[in-house]
Amino acid sequence: MSLGNSINNKIFENISFSKEEIGIIESVFFKETYKKGTYLLKAGDIVNNQYYISEGCLRSYHTDAQGREYTVQFGIKDWWMSDFTAFFSNSQAILNIEVLQDTTLYRITREHKEYLYNQIPKVESFFRKKLERAFSAFQKRILSELSLTATERYVNFVKSYPNIQKYIKNYHIASYLGITTESLSRIRKELSHN
Amino acid sequence: MSLGNSINNKIFENISFSKEEIGIIESVFFKETYKKGTYLLKAGDIVNNQYYISEGCLRSYHTDAQGREYTVQFGIKDWWMSDFTAFFSNSQAILNIEVLQDTTLYRITREHKEYLYNQIPKVESFFRKKLERAFSAFQKRILSELSLTATERYVNFVKSYPNIQKYIKNYHIASYLGITTESLSRIRKELSHN
Repeated sequence: MSLGNSINNKIFENISFSKEEIGIIESVFFKETYKKGTYLLKAGDIVNNQYYISEGCLRSYHTDAQGREYTVQFGIKDWWMSDFTAFFSNSQAILNIEVLQDTTLYRITREHKEYLYNQIPKVESFFRKKLERAFSAFQKRILSELSLTATERYVNFVKSYPNIQKYIKNYHIASYLGITTESLSRIRKELSHN
Repeated sequence: MSLGNSINNKIFENISFSKEEIGIIESVFFKETYKKGTYLLKAGDIVNNQYYISEGCLRSYHTDAQGREYTVQFGIKDWWMSDFTAFFSNSQAILNIEVLQDTTLYRITREHKEYLYNQIPKVESFFRKKLERAFSAFQKRILSELSLTATERYVNFVKSYPNIQKYIKNYHIASYLGITTESLSRIRKELSHN
């Protein structure tokens, strides 16, 4: 699918744009492809871009001083990806973004986003609403980390990412849930018996 | 401080508004006062408002089926408060918001916020940037819940809310950190010995 079609059909969901607006948007989104096993971003990088995922699968994670990994987010088709904390504040990434499956992205810089906000204010409304949903999803996750059992969190994870399990490894899921792969196996076995 | 002064000095941080714009903003913010021990919001309420805290202290928390409390956020002077997940999606609160100290708020409805976005687009930019920071704070908290010890999380909490400890009870802090009050006492004792 061309970027022009994606803009009207996917990237900005239900917003309709004039031909001129699509021209403006096309001028600031850059198509990139990444192979499985490569990295979009590494901790310490200055983050100037966010990415719309057209195809593929990615994972953002943090590595602590002991080398343990904590998965923050998986990214699949039609999701947006970055180290948003670093992107929003124009600072160094604390996350790594790993390409789990060959991926096609549309990249936009912070400066070009600001440019779009000025040229096409409904783009700012779109991203504001996106952020509201992302904020809500994070609040839900904070509460679930505090209040739910690992089994309940696993069930929620499967609901949130229904089509992702074929692309990712068990330790990716375990590091998203904050448990060991052994605990994950035990949880799956228990659930399959019920 | 009058709302007019607050608008130019506090609520919208560094944005400057014309007299006419201040008039518009004043027409959609409603001052309210709440006594310690009352509730701004209870789980199950439909959430149509968000609140700017002019004075006081509040706490939002979730109660699970077993009656355990999980604190999501404390609100102090110059912060914004609501069950944002419910507010953004016009749905029922899953949080309670309790008034910990006598509080003065400026309330705005969802419809009036949309009205402001249309009348004064820089207000939408302001809230978009606020959301970016809130999103980043939540990402940091998710990572800290996954990767840090309770002691490290307590130290971060004290840094994030430096002036709040005199207003809140130990079980409020414990329920923010996802630990028992006994663990909190132990952590404090250990830190005071170091």
